[in-house]
Amino acid sequence: MHAMEQGSVQEHGRSRKLSKIWVINERVRVGLAESLSTYVMMVFGLGSVAQVVTGRGAFGEYLSVNLGFGLGVAMGMHIGGRVSGAHMNAAVSFSMCLFGRLGWRMLPVYILCQLIGSFLAAGTIYSLYYDAIYHYCGGNLTVSGPKATAGIFATYPAPYLSLPAGFLDQVIGTAMLLLCLMALSDQRNQPAPSGSEPIAVGLLVLLIGVSLGSNSGYAINPSRDLGPRIFTAIAGWGPEVFRAGNGWWWVPVLAPMVGGVTGASIYKVFVELHHPSPCEHRREIEDEAEEESMNSVWLPG
Amino acid sequence: MHAMEQGSVQEHGRSRKLSKIWVINERVRVGLAESLSTYVMMVFGLGSVAQVVTGRGAFGEYLSVNLGFGLGVAMGMHIGGRVSGAHMNAAVSFSMCLFGRLGWRMLPVYILCQLIGSFLAAGTIYSLYYDAIYHYCGGNLTVSGPKATAGIFATYPAPYLSLPAGFLDQVIGTAMLLLCLMALSDQRNQPAPSGSEPIAVGLLVLLIGVSLGSNSGYAINPSRDLGPRIFTAIAGWGPEVFRAGNGWWWVPVLAPMVGGVTGASIYKVFVELHHPSPCEHRREIEDEAEEESMNSVWLPG
Amino acid sequence: MHAMEQGSVQEHGRSRKLSKIWVINERVRVGLAESLSTYVMMVFGLGSVAQVVTGRGAFGEYLSVNLGFGLGVAMGMHIGGRVSGAHMNAAVSFSMCLFGRLGWRMLPVYILCQLIGSFLAAGTIYSLYYDAIYHYCGGNLTVSGPKATAGIFATYPAPYLSLPAGFLDQVIGTAMLLLCLMALSDQRNQPAPSGSEPIAVGLLVLLIGVSLGSNSGYAINPSRDLGPRIFTAIAGWGPEVFRAGNGWWWVPVLAPMVGGVTGASIYKVFVELHHPSPCEHRREIEDEAEEESMNSVWLPG
Amino acid sequence: MHAMEQGSVQEHGRSRKLSKIWVINERVRVGLAESLSTYVMMVFGLGSVAQVVTGRGAFGEYLSVNLGFGLGVAMGMHIGGRVSGAHMNAAVSFSMCLFGRLGWRMLPVYILCQLIGSFLAAGTIYSLYYDAIYHYCGGNLTVSGPKATAGIFATYPAPYLSLPAGFLDQVIGTAMLLLCLMALSDQRNQPAPSGSEPIAVGLLVLLIGVSLGSNSGYAINPSRDLGPRIFTAIAGWGPEVFRAGNGWWWVPVLAPMVGGVTGASIYKVFVELHHPSPCEHRREIEDEAEEESMNSVWLPG
Repeated sequence: MHAMEQGSVQEHGRSRKLSKIWVINERVRVGLAESLSTYVMMVFGLGSVAQVVTGRGAFGEYLSVNLGFGLGVAMGMHIGGRVSGAHMNAAVSFSMCLFGRLGWRMLPVYILCQLIGSFLAAGTIYSLYYDAIYHYCGGNLTVSGPKATAGIFATYPAPYLSLPAGFLDQVIGTAMLLLCLMALSDQRNQPAPSGSEPIAVGLLVLLIGVSLGSNSGYAINPSRDLGPRIFTAIAGWGPEVFRAGNGWWWVPVLAPMVGGVTGASIYKVFVELHHPSPCEHRREIEDEAEEESMNSVWLPG
Repeated sequence: MHAMEQGSVQEHGRSRKLSKIWVINERVRVGLAESLSTYVMMVFGLGSVAQVVTGRGAFGEYLSVNLGFGLGVAMGMHIGGRVSGAHMNAAVSFSMCLFGRLGWRMLPVYILCQLIGSFLAAGTIYSLYYDAIYHYCGGNLTVSGPKATAGIFATYPAPYLSLPAGFLDQVIGTAMLLLCLMALSDQRNQPAPSGSEPIAVGLLVLLIGVSLGSNSGYAINPSRDLGPRIFTAIAGWGPEVFRAGNGWWWVPVLAPMVGGVTGASIYKVFVELHHPSPCEHRREIEDEAEEESMNSVWLPG
Repeated sequence: MHAMEQGSVQEHGRSRKLSKIWVINERVRVGLAESLSTYVMMVFGLGSVAQVVTGRGAFGEYLSVNLGFGLGVAMGMHIGGRVSGAHMNAAVSFSMCLFGRLGWRMLPVYILCQLIGSFLAAGTIYSLYYDAIYHYCGGNLTVSGPKATAGIFATYPAPYLSLPAGFLDQVIGTAMLLLCLMALSDQRNQPAPSGSEPIAVGLLVLLIGVSLGSNSGYAINPSRDLGPRIFTAIAGWGPEVFRAGNGWWWVPVLAPMVGGVTGASIYKVFVELHHPSPCEHRREIEDEAEEESMNSVWLPG
Repeated sequence: MHAMEQGSVQEHGRSRKLSKIWVINERVRVGLAESLSTYVMMVFGLGSVAQVVTGRGAFGEYLSVNLGFGLGVAMGMHIGGRVSGAHMNAAVSFSMCLFGRLGWRMLPVYILCQLIGSFLAAGTIYSLYYDAIYHYCGGNLTVSGPKATAGIFATYPAPYLSLPAGFLDQVIGTAMLLLCLMALSDQRNQPAPSGSEPIAVGLLVLLIGVSLGSNSGYAINPSRDLGPRIFTAIAGWGPEVFRAGNGWWWVPVLAPMVGGVTGASIYKVFVELHHPSPCEHRREIEDEAEEESMNSVWLPG
């Protein structure tokens, strides 16, 4: 309130009411954007899996799925970008809360809207590829086996993967995601060029798919995995989607939370904490330090 | 007329005449650019299909076609960019008219020039790959079957796809296109970086091909599909190109119109309508809102 | 000389001499940059073909060659960029001369340096892949047949391609290249973003490979093709490299010259000539034209 | 010391002490960033190889490895960017020292931290793909043979490659890397767009993998190769990792040093030395030189 310059008591009251409306509006505004951006990301991502699986390789390969999720994330960020920040990932939202970049009161809004978005995207892809899926599996919706189609929507671990190894897989994958996201947004380091954040994050997700994807399909995102899994449970694959892989479903829900915070912390400890404060030491030591600090920019001319 | 500051009657008349000429010139100017940009997009797009089909996989794969159309769209946008806007797609032009971003009087010019461009591109690719096509199919130009070549030019549905499902496929594909195009050009959100619109739209089209392409070849564009289809009807494939797929030809003509408007509307309803007006509420509520709005930018430092 | 403001006769003479030295220096400077940029482009381009051919598909596929030449062109442009313009292509240099953007006296310098660069690059790749080539073909360097290796260095037509069709193929390929290059550098249209010209041109070359490459290997560049062909004639493949494909060798030398000029002219006639002169008609007709010109920018907000 | 403007003796002493602390801090700061950026690059790079090898082609192909290292380098540069310069490569650091862009005293810090980073990354990928590797090779960790897995971590030459040819391979590969790095950072030529250096360098590394990778796996980097090789020697593959390929291990350690300096020197001799000094010759010869210098920018409008 202290910033108000000429406020009478009357104006004060009006401002209070307005700001309450504003806060509700703001939540609606943010929530709509967050669900639409998650929806867009997931339609593109799940669509690419559906196409590769039902096309038996004639309409893309594993790299297409990496492109589908990578560029899908980029487009999702263009949708929600400056409105909700387009997290599209509960592990990202949770980490942002923990590091004070998002109010905790907004966390449920974010997670709920992300789940709604990914659930609806699963429904869209199911409708869109209904004929293709039924043609592929002969109408027999299975979670495992040679004609399994549940993997179009949610992730399942490779047969050889133990649960602890799968947990580690999701922790490390999400840690790499958040570690790099912190760098891409650190204005005191080498961030993504202004305006190019969506494509930079998209390439990061593509990269994770190319490098850390084969163990369990790189969910690295509770919102990406849980919404479509619930959809498949309802749409015909049944409760098996929660039992498969030794009850795998909770791993991509919980492990990314742990991994996200770990990755962001590593960046903070190794890089962010050591950024020189803007005014510190400036005058006194510029002189001697010159030679040493020559390494501080990339191939300086 | 009201903006003229020192106009005498004589000058007024001269201005009228000049502006009429200007309007005609403008239409010619816009029409030439629109047909050339559509031509360029289509030569690259159809060329990539011709190469993959006639090369039997030795000169590219499905991903090459995605690249051919995606980067082809980007190059087309560089050609017509600031002259016609390089829609290259009747569904885009139609949506622009409906949302007041293009005068209705210009719509026929756009659609006609797009059709001319894509027709001529089909002719170019036919000449260029004449030897390759005849070598591939033994001189027997067919629309379906193992050596079908009509699919180089226009899209045909997968055998398992029903007409309503195909209609839905084209509606959703085009809706995703326009939804993202609206976001990429929304200056109050996170638009494509200035100057990088062509590559951003190109990646969007690549993404649609990677994710929503296997049902019916992602025409998502009446101008892309109808021009080459007419060409093939004339050039030797005959009326079968209109009969195949249960008379599929009208689906990629009509459905993208519906889908385009749907997608653009969804963006408007979910995001654009909720943008705060520039001056609204500014002074009164900045204070309380600070904490809540922390989430409004991408990973703010 | 007329622009000199305070020149005495003595200064005049000194300036003459200086400028003659400068001109020679300038030619050396430009020539060195042009040969190094062509060299870099060709090492990467030919290297990607060598890798795909000798690796029998285990180290890349057709798309790798598209990436090798596309990104190779981008790197070449970073090398010679603001020194020589990094044409790396006699057809580009020739078109630039014809349209008054390069002095004719510089043309021989450009072409010679490009040929030297591509010849040396062929030598480098030959040394680098010497073991691999001999392991692949059993020491038998052939131009055609199942283990042909001459195609690593120069282009050869597909067996089904007639000479006239091959000529047309090279004309159209190079026309598309120059048409798009003109657009990418047209500051009054939608050019490549400043500083991103290399990657934009690289993607264009990748696109041509994806779309117009299977007939005869998209030389679209006399300098790219002739230098390495001469190298192979000397290095062990013999005069057959000039006889193969019905004496194909002159097609990628001559046709790109024709195609380049054609493509650049098409852009001029369809787009550049119609750009409004900066001051023309401004005041009088702004008013009425507003509605019509709404289409002139990309999805204007 | 001469730059101090109002320093008393007391302040002088305090400044000395402060600057010593600063220097130590600076080394820690730079070292942490350099090891983290190398770690990130290597986790993504090695992860992509692990995925392709253990997935038997179902989770990516050779191009995925190119993408894994290319984009991995880009992300690494975002991590260490403006702190350490993110060399991630002893050959780069060594060349920078030789050309006066990095103090020699910093070289051991860089190399050590790079080795630590790549060693830890190898450990991470080993843990992450432990189940996958054991499932792939049946628990039998071998350096050569059909189920060899040592190649996931360090590079080994192709069977046909002689040691001298392998040395040449690494010299040329690293020379191309440094040659292009010099151009990408040369502000008086056509450098990578400001802020886009990471993606430009990433594409360069991808390109080297696409073009110069099949002989011996394009290490072109002692830090990338030696750290993981030491890890495998300890983790179960044994001393064979140093004996394989005729004692190959020292080639990717030594040859990149030679190649890096060679490549950087070539750029200096061919391009950088010939840049006109900013003020030289300006007034006298602008006139005559105009026509000649028309070629000096890319397709000038």
